[in-house]
Amino acid sequence: MELISSVKCFGGDQRRYRHRSEVLDCEMTVSVYLPPQAAKGPVPAVWFLAGLTCSDENFIIKAGAQRYAAELGLAIICPDTSPRGDGVADDEAYDLGQGAGFYVNATREPWAKHFRMWDYITAELPGLVGEACPLDMQRQSIMGHSMGGHGALTIGLTHPDRFAAISAFAPIVAPMQVPWGVKAFTTYLGEPPSAWAAHDACQLLRSSQADLPPILIDQGEADNFLAEQLRPDLLEAEIRGRDITVRRQEGYDHSYFFIASFVGEHLAWHARALAV
Amino acid sequence: MELISSVKCFGGDQRRYRHRSEVLDCEMTVSVYLPPQAAKGPVPAVWFLAGLTCSDENFIIKAGAQRYAAELGLAIICPDTSPRGDGVADDEAYDLGQGAGFYVNATREPWAKHFRMWDYITAELPGLVGEACPLDMQRQSIMGHSMGGHGALTIGLTHPDRFAAISAFAPIVAPMQVPWGVKAFTTYLGEPPSAWAAHDACQLLRSSQADLPPILIDQGEADNFLAEQLRPDLLEAEIRGRDITVRRQEGYDHSYFFIASFVGEHLAWHARALAV
Repeated sequence: MELISSVKCFGGDQRRYRHRSEVLDCEMTVSVYLPPQAAKGPVPAVWFLAGLTCSDENFIIKAGAQRYAAELGLAIICPDTSPRGDGVADDEAYDLGQGAGFYVNATREPWAKHFRMWDYITAELPGLVGEACPLDMQRQSIMGHSMGGHGALTIGLTHPDRFAAISAFAPIVAPMQVPWGVKAFTTYLGEPPSAWAAHDACQLLRSSQADLPPILIDQGEADNFLAEQLRPDLLEAEIRGRDITVRRQEGYDHSYFFIASFVGEHLAWHARALAV
Repeated sequence: MELISSVKCFGGDQRRYRHRSEVLDCEMTVSVYLPPQAAKGPVPAVWFLAGLTCSDENFIIKAGAQRYAAELGLAIICPDTSPRGDGVADDEAYDLGQGAGFYVNATREPWAKHFRMWDYITAELPGLVGEACPLDMQRQSIMGHSMGGHGALTIGLTHPDRFAAISAFAPIVAPMQVPWGVKAFTTYLGEPPSAWAAHDACQLLRSSQADLPPILIDQGEADNFLAEQLRPDLLEAEIRGRDITVRRQEGYDHSYFFIASFVGEHLAWHARALAV
């Protein structure tokens, strides 16, 4: 992990690292915010997985989350959204290829060589950031936006012992049933869709018998993608008595102005779950 | 004023307008944040003038200021930093031409036709935003960053009856004595520098006999431009008992991460001055 920038922010450090990923077989960047409390010892870590077209920087520049993280003593880990580089497969569409990894391990060509974001986020990157930064990796939680909300939900639901809580802003909750997800899964995972269910939050909720982390979702009612791509109603139908809160926020859209408006409540909620 | 976007943020509206500027003889954009309180009636307005290379959007995307403005009931007006467009003179350097208006009325060619940012900010734009938005134009204050800190100081000091308070992040306080300012003033205003003093905060402080608004300045100690371009020591020498606070912030650089860390304190300070 090569530290490529470290900028003081709310008394802590907004860091950015470059590193070689063995899993993705390319160079990657990752941003980590360390609150002032990290100077005294390891702090709990909240993962933020970003959405389509984003890098590791959108959230740290646009969400205004450092203020809350500094108050609460939380680190925030922001990975990139796909493998990157000239040698990595890509597509002209914004919702496929670089910037659109969908947090799966691709099995189809030409994607299978690099597009292994599931393993990168769940297996390789935790070791790298845990070694480079004073993080208490026994206390992790996870959140995300849109495609990254899908990633946070599916990764969190598959690792209920690792994450104290899961939250999402305008997540894709049922990728098997919406155009973004069907396109990505068809491209990366292929047909028939027998492998798709492991990457569909609604399917995971339907089939899981485990004790799951609490889930908090905010969805803007003025989000252009609400009816066709996001479909929170499909997740609401899978709640069935579990600790899952879906809040519809009147007038809010899909942007980081929406995330900024509620990220403080999300981080405070994660902090309470991580305080155990 | 054509409303080109309006996004809900912290219960208020982050708006962006496009309009024809008679003063600048081109099309301009301006961003205005209206807090939730603006739904009930006119609210006080804080101007934010941005720095070199910035547009009207950098502050609204990166500073995280809407959260504080919503709490305090303040609007924030963010103008662009220069005239814009294909027909407008420009320069390849980042510190001259479009994105680098320096808040003066240029008198030299080829700049004089469009580069009249002083008149735009002080005379034309207040009328346009005051008409388009529920702003209490009897209660205004002004702040800015770097080149925009220079603009906030010089415009605020020249209009002590209009602005209740002036604040700045890493401002150019003595443009006549530093490379950025000498280059811009030579280019836009020409030599000999008889017209320069009206646009130099240190000169204005030295010559002013008026009751001035209170001034708050934050300057990062790890700012790369501190010693050569910003020179807060030159302003500190002009305080002479007036209500001017210059805070040196250890470890902070010139970025919006620095602004974000302290903008809440600045806005709370402006709100107190505007509450009279």
